[in-house]
Parts: sequence; structure tokens; C-alpha cells
Amino acid sequence: MAVRLDEIVARFGGTILDSTGVPVGAGDTPLITIHRIAPLDSAGPGDLAFLANPKYRQQLATTRASAVIIAPTVDHCPVPAIVVPQPYLYFARVAQWMNPPPPVVAGCHVSAVVEGEVDPTASVGANTWIGSGARVGAGTVIGANCSIGNNVQIGEGVRLFPNVSIYAGCVIGARTTIHSSAVIGGDGFGYAPDIDRSWFKIPQIGRVLIGDDVEIGAATTIDRGAMLDTVIEDGVKIDNLVQIAHNVRIGAHSAIAGCTGIAGSTTIGKRCTLAGASMISGHLTICDDVIVSAGTLIAKSIAKAGMYSGGTPFLEHSDWLKNFSKLRHLDAMADKIRALEKRLADLEKKSS
Amino acid sequence: MAVRLDEIVARFGGTILDSTGVPVGAGDTPLITIHRIAPLDSAGPGDLAFLANPKYRQQLATTRASAVIIAPTVDHCPVPAIVVPQPYLYFARVAQWMNPPPPVVAGCHVSAVVEGEVDPTASVGANTWIGSGARVGAGTVIGANCSIGNNVQIGEGVRLFPNVSIYAGCVIGARTTIHSSAVIGGDGFGYAPDIDRSWFKIPQIGRVLIGDDVEIGAATTIDRGAMLDTVIEDGVKIDNLVQIAHNVRIGAHSAIAGCTGIAGSTTIGKRCTLAGASMISGHLTICDDVIVSAGTLIAKSIAKAGMYSGGTPFLEHSDWLKNFSKLRHLDAMADKIRALEKRLADLEKKSS
Amino acid sequence: MAVRLDEIVARFGGTILDSTGVPVGAGDTPLITIHRIAPLDSAGPGDLAFLANPKYRQQLATTRASAVIIAPTVDHCPVPAIVVPQPYLYFARVAQWMNPPPPVVAGCHVSAVVEGEVDPTASVGANTWIGSGARVGAGTVIGANCSIGNNVQIGEGVRLFPNVSIYAGCVIGARTTIHSSAVIGGDGFGYAPDIDRSWFKIPQIGRVLIGDDVEIGAATTIDRGAMLDTVIEDGVKIDNLVQIAHNVRIGAHSAIAGCTGIAGSTTIGKRCTLAGASMISGHLTICDDVIVSAGTLIAKSIAKAGMYSGGTPFLEHSDWLKNFSKLRHLDAMADKIRALEKRLADLEKKSS
Repeated sequence: MAVRLDEIVARFGGTILDSTGVPVGAGDTPLITIHRIAPLDSAGPGDLAFLANPKYRQQLATTRASAVIIAPTVDHCPVPAIVVPQPYLYFARVAQWMNPPPPVVAGCHVSAVVEGEVDPTASVGANTWIGSGARVGAGTVIGANCSIGNNVQIGEGVRLFPNVSIYAGCVIGARTTIHSSAVIGGDGFGYAPDIDRSWFKIPQIGRVLIGDDVEIGAATTIDRGAMLDTVIEDGVKIDNLVQIAHNVRIGAHSAIAGCTGIAGSTTIGKRCTLAGASMISGHLTICDDVIVSAGTLIAKSIAKAGMYSGGTPFLEHSDWLKNFSKLRHLDAMADKIRALEKRLADLEKKSS
Repeated sequence: MAVRLDEIVARFGGTILDSTGVPVGAGDTPLITIHRIAPLDSAGPGDLAFLANPKYRQQLATTRASAVIIAPTVDHCPVPAIVVPQPYLYFARVAQWMNPPPPVVAGCHVSAVVEGEVDPTASVGANTWIGSGARVGAGTVIGANCSIGNNVQIGEGVRLFPNVSIYAGCVIGARTTIHSSAVIGGDGFGYAPDIDRSWFKIPQIGRVLIGDDVEIGAATTIDRGAMLDTVIEDGVKIDNLVQIAHNVRIGAHSAIAGCTGIAGSTTIGKRCTLAGASMISGHLTICDDVIVSAGTLIAKSIAKAGMYSGGTPFLEHSDWLKNFSKLRHLDAMADKIRALEKRLADLEKKSS
Repeated sequence: MAVRLDEIVARFGGTILDSTGVPVGAGDTPLITIHRIAPLDSAGPGDLAFLANPKYRQQLATTRASAVIIAPTVDHCPVPAIVVPQPYLYFARVAQWMNPPPPVVAGCHVSAVVEGEVDPTASVGANTWIGSGARVGAGTVIGANCSIGNNVQIGEGVRLFPNVSIYAGCVIGARTTIHSSAVIGGDGFGYAPDIDRSWFKIPQIGRVLIGDDVEIGAATTIDRGAMLDTVIEDGVKIDNLVQIAHNVRIGAHSAIAGCTGIAGSTTIGKRCTLAGASMISGHLTICDDVIVSAGTLIAKSIAKAGMYSGGTPFLEHSDWLKNFSKLRHLDAMADKIRALEKRLADLEKKSS
């Protein structure tokens, strides 16, 4: 693909500056041709780079990119620039436009086993199974070796990569993407203790309802509800190896990074961000606009928007041994401080 | 499905009370008909709810359920009730009975590749591969796209959901359930450091032996033993995204919640509960009846039944910065307290 | 398989001692025949055991093994021994030799869908899909139900177990092993915040490049780069359920244990060891020869080789409640100590 800067600006807005910082008008020619999007520090001729994080501003001086997307606050760019208020979002839009998904090859591969109903504009890959009563919407692409259970409803423009499993009865909204080895609708982890101390399984008869424009990462697991449904609202983005237990609800446009687990019946608000390896206990309510730091265990509900953390710092091992062993004595240390305060007060009184 | 309360009681025991708390005899008619099990706060007409956790007792006053399963300690229920000593277990039994698994459609799908031996009453899904020497027991259901290695032995009444992988030689007991993307019998993580500091692989020649009535969650991985076997005893329940390393043994009826990892050669006792995201180091012995809290790192053996915890609380981010940074100075704080105690004792002696 | 000790020594070196500690010459006969490798404490007649960890030295006295691999520092072995400087590495070599992988059955299973190019000496399992433009090298074994995307390049002698997914364009080096449910090349987790606070996807157009002699565990996920590539260098060993985000680079011969996550754009040096459930933040640089302890959150770059830890100890639950709740008051405790020091100094001055 080859596009000129003025074609980009005509489509996405922004102002073009030449390498001396002078605005370039629509009539000025010839303009730089872009073949690729690339990071500022590794871009070369033909590449369009971007500067979104002020931390990388010094890379601008030495970039070999043909042009850079910058914010108006950047005072000097040694190569031609597109000036826009949100360079990162602008970069994303240009990148999507320059890297469209491969065209959909409509039809079901001859090796696929299709018992349900697939829209004629959809694509079903080799050796995939689609159960009876399942429905696959227009323009949806299902990769190889997927297993789509009975009565699953998949919307339009959905993309399932290979080896995805969706259990019976689940619902996948439009334009949602699910990556390989993900499992949607497995049984929740629900058992009643029996009299002999074995576990008696509680049948998991709810579904998973996934909204529109959701993305679900590789090997992520989302359990079906026990009696009611597990719900992932519109626009939620979930990374790889995330566990979402039964009856969880994730509010619209929340983002959940890799290795995170959310225990049963917890509700996460809208526009929350859970950083990697965070752990959310069950039966909690997290309000909208909460940010949880990496490696944080959330064991109580959160009713106030903001950022919450609980991870521990790391140390050289010998320092760690000395310091973290004291965690066992924090209560005794607090007692000693109280005792010292009392004895000191007595002594102060005596000596005054 | 439609059942009357007296049919339920005839099958599972318990006493029926009417909405005024008066016992209802077997001859009294007509009795309420139940179509569904539902939670107390969202149940409606035709639903049977239950009250197991005293925390939800206030929901009883406003429930719209047609009937509720309660304990004898509940003094008033405004709708008809079934009174039993263990409402949660009773609910589970009724729920299982009202929601039986779909009937087994015996036979191997024409697209399945079956090199082993499958009982004629078993069911094998589309595009599944069953290796040579493998055996599948009566009434077992294997979903689509599963891969069952050579010489795997699968008992009776087993349920494998789609996309399960079982490596050669592993053994799966009767009535065990394994969810999608789970991997049973992958190589353990065993290498010897070579002279050039590369890693030399130790062949993993043990098996995984899984007992009866086990449940294994989605994308959970259980490695085969290095020389001997990895063993999951009867009745163990394992949630999603759990890692069980080579030569681990899990005692009967233990339950392991999601995102937990157990390192190599560790033995977990019977009836243990590992909460979510717990991390168990290798070569440990955990005795029977141990409960490990969420997010806890167990780095030493445990010889006494009970509950163990090690997770850290979370704070608002600014409070966390102030407090958790002090973890690096705990040893110095302990030294300061000691020094203060000594100086104060000197001063006290002097002033006495 | 049956081998004599002198055959082993002829192939791998070392000195044979009889059960009285006397060296056995090449001509001395008959020599013990070994059928199997087994651990010291469970070995029986016909088994060759090894003693690598001094902790297990006392098991030597009672071992029923026919022979044991020991180091020269072991002063007495009651059964015949092979004496070598590195017993664990020696054991690994013998074990590999005695347990060769099953022979490769060349050819593509009739149910496989092969659109790419497979070397005639390679093996492709049942119901596997190999996309167009993909290439599979000599002697490579691809298990059942794998999905190999378009233009994937797979080297010689590679082993993919069943249900592996490799996305389009990724490259797998020679003799690399990938276990079931692993996903190579899924999209990285990259989105720009849009004006309406939804997430705008950044297309992930890089690849995953995996070197030679790498091993990747079950259900491990390695994301493709955003613009450039994610790189796993030669000889890296990765356990199960590990998440490696986009643009990460793992240096040669590093080992990463289960349940670990590495966030985007982080570089791990050569010969590093990340123990289980460690969490590495994004955009960091970890130098060569770093060891990270289990359950440690690494949130800053590390420039000095050595061992780093950050996990918390566990306690009985009641002790944990008392001690870990003080984590919220560490800053106040530090303030109190400072105040005490000042008051005490004042008092000391006054009383001197």
C-alpha cells in the first residue's frame, strides 16, 4: 500500500508541516508517500511514525521516518509531520486503514461439519464444528478447528480464530473477536459440600452473553452462569489467559489485561482497567472508572472511582529475606511502638 | 419440566410448609408446580429458590419465588417452603434432577478419526481424533475436535468437552468431566543445565492418572510425571486455568480454584481448598484439610490442618505508594525499635 | 530396552564402581543390566537411579536400585554406581537415550487439510489445517487438530502436539516443541482510547519469531508484535500457562516457569530464570543472568545479574489478619518511630 500524506489528512484530518515546520497546503506537491506504519526509533524511509508519549520525544531528533504524527505541543520536528490533537488515536486509525483484515472468503470449508445455520456471506474454516440450532451472522469469519455448540448465536462481522470453543446456548455480539484456545461458556465452579465431604455439582444452566465490539484473548476462559447469565458488555477488551467466573458482569468498555482472574458473581463497572495478574474476589461490586494495578488482590468492593494498588515491591534476594520476614512481626512491632510511646510519655512527665 | 413440591419432597426428603408456616401433608392439594430453579432475588412465579447463606435472609421478605428451600432455623418464610437441614446441598440435588445432561447420542461422528476402541454406547464428536490403543468406556461423551493420544484409557460416563487434548498413555477415571482447551499429560518442565548453560531436556515418561468423579476446568494443564506419575485422586475439582506440574499428587475431594499453580512434586492432602490465584511451590507436602486463601504463595510444607493466608491488602494508590514503599525498610524499622528500647531502658534506669 | 552399565559408560563417560566402591574395568563381567530410569526412593531391581541433590543422600542407604549415578563427592554407595562430575545432566542424557521419541510416521493424515507445503519426511496429524503459503520442514511432527495459519514457516525436527494454533506469518525454528492449546501469534493487547472512551484497536501486524530448540508449554500464549516482531531466542524454555505479550524479547536459554506473565515491549536477557507466577511489567529491560523468585512482581528494569524476590510469606489466617492489616499503617509506624527518636533525643540531652 502506498499513500500520500495529503490523502491521509484528507481522510483523517490534521495539518501537514514540512521539515522546517511550515504548513503544507493541499495544492503543494509532491508530497511524501507512506508505505508502512513504524515505531519512531526503528522507522525508515517510507515509514510513518508517531510521537504520543513525551518520554520518547528525544527520538524525534534522530528518526529516519519519512513523516511523524505529532501533537501541537511538539515545537520542532526535523521531518515532515501531521499535527493532530491525539497522535496515538490518529496513528491507530491510519494503521487500521493501511492494514485492513484479509477479505472474507465466503462459504464453509468442505471439511467443516455444519449442523446449524451459517449466513452465505460468512466463512467457516477447515474441520470446524457448528452444532445444531447455532446461527452465524453475515460476514463472520470462523477459523479452523473451532467448536460452536448447539444453539449458539453469533452476530455479524464476528471473527473467531482457530481452536475456539463456545458452549451451547451462548450469544456473541456483532464485530466481536475471539482468539484461539479461548473457551466461552464452560461450567462455573459450583459445588455443594455433600454429607460425606465430597462435592456435589450444581448444574450450570446460565449462558454467557457477550456484547458487540468485544475482544477476547487467547486461552481466556469465561464461564457460563450458574442459574442466570455471565455478561460481558459492549466494547470490553480482555487479554490472554484471563479467567472470568460464573455470573460475573463486566461493564462496557472495561479493559482486562493478561493473567487476571475474576471470581464468581462479581460486577465490574464501566470503563474500568484491570492491569495484568490482578485478582478480584467473588461477590464484589467494583464501580465505574476504577483502575487496578498489576498484581493486586481486590478482596473488598470499591465504591469510589480511582486507582487502587496492593502489589509488593521486589528487592535483591538478601534484602528481601531481611525485610519481608518482618511481615510476620508487624503486629508485634506496632505493640512495641505503643509501649515505647507510653514509657517515653511517663519519663517525659517525670522529668518535666 | 414441571414438578410439584410434593414430588420433590417425596424424592429428596424435607417438610413442606405453606406460606403461613403450617406443614402441608402429602394428601393436601393442589400443590405448587415448579418449572425452574432460580436465585432468591430474581426468582418469579414457577421458580424454586433457596436460602443457604444467612446474609441473604432479608431477600426472603420480598421474594417472588413460588417456593423456597430453607433451613429449620429460618423462622418465617412468606411463601411456601421446603424445610431441610442443608438447603444448599438440597438445592444442588433438585437442580441436578431438574437439569439432566443432554441424552448421549451413541456413535462416532463420521468425521471423527478413531484408531482406538470406543464402546458402542459412547459418543464421539465431529473431527475428534482417538489414537491407536486408546479405549473409551460406556456412555462416555467426547466432544468435537478433541485429541486423545495413543493408549489413553477413558472410563465410563466421562464427559470431554470440545478441544480437549489428552497425551499418550494417560488414564481418566469414571464420570470425570474435562472442559475445553484443557491439556492432560503434556511434558513436565524438566531440564538439566548443560555445560554450555543451555538446557538439556529430561524426557517425561510418567503418566497422568485421574480418578473417578473429577472435574477439570477449561484451559487447565496437568503435566505427566517425569519418571513416575502425576496423580489426581477421586472427587477432586479443579477450576479453569490451573497449572499442575509433574509428579504432583492431589488428594481426594480437594478443590482448586482458578489461576492457581502447583509446582512439581508437591503433594496436596485430601479435602484441601486452594482459593483462586494461589501459588504452591514445588517439593512440598500439604496435609489434609488445609485451606489456602486467594493470592497466597505457599513456599513451605504445611503439617497442620487450618486456614493459611499471605495476600496483601489493597489501598488507594497514593496510600499504597506511602505504605508499601516501607516494605523495603522493615528491617531498619525493627532495628530502630530495638535501639529505642535500649536507649529508653538506659534513660529509665538513670532516672529511677 | 535393556542396557548394561558398561554400555552406558562407553557412550556417556564416567567410572563404574561396584557395591564395595571398587572400580570395575571394561573386561570385568557380568555387569548389571538396566531397563529403566527411576527416582532413588522408588527404584527397584533393573532401575538406574541418580543422586544429584545432597538433600536426598540418605536415600542412598536404602535404595533398591540396581545402580546409581553419583558425584565423586559421595563417599559410599551400597549398590553399583556410575561416578560422574554432573550426575543430573548425566541422568538426563541416559534418560533421553533410553526413551527416544516415537519414530516419525511420514505423511499427512487423509483428514488433514494441507494448503501449504509439507516436507515429505514430515508428519501431519488427523484434522489438522495448514494454511496456504505455510511451509513445514523435514522430520517435523504436527499433531492432530492443529491450525497453522497462512505463510507460517516451521523448521526441521519441530514437534507440535495436538490443538496448537499458530497465526499467519509466524516463524518456528528447528527442533522446537510446542504443547497443546498453545497459541502463537495472537493479536497483542493494543488499543488507543477513543474520544467517546471506547477503545480503538491498533492492528497487530508484527510476527512471532521463535528460535531453535525452544520448548513452549501447554496453553501458553505468545502474542505477535504490534508493528515489529515478538522474539523468542534459541534454547528458551517456557512452561505452561505463560503469557508473553507483544514485542517482548526473551534472550537465549532463559527459562520461564508456569503462570508467569510478561507485559508488552519488555526485554528479558539471556540465561534468566523466572520462577512460577512471576509478573513482569511492560517496557522493562531485564539484564542477562537474572533469577526472579516465585510470585514476584517486577515493576522496574534490572541492570545487575542476581536473584530478586518480592513474594510475601504466608501465616496462619489469624496471624495474617493481625500482621498484614498493619501494611496499611506502615507509613504511620515509620512516622511514630521518627517522633520517638526525636523525643528520646531531647530527653537524653535534658538528662545528660
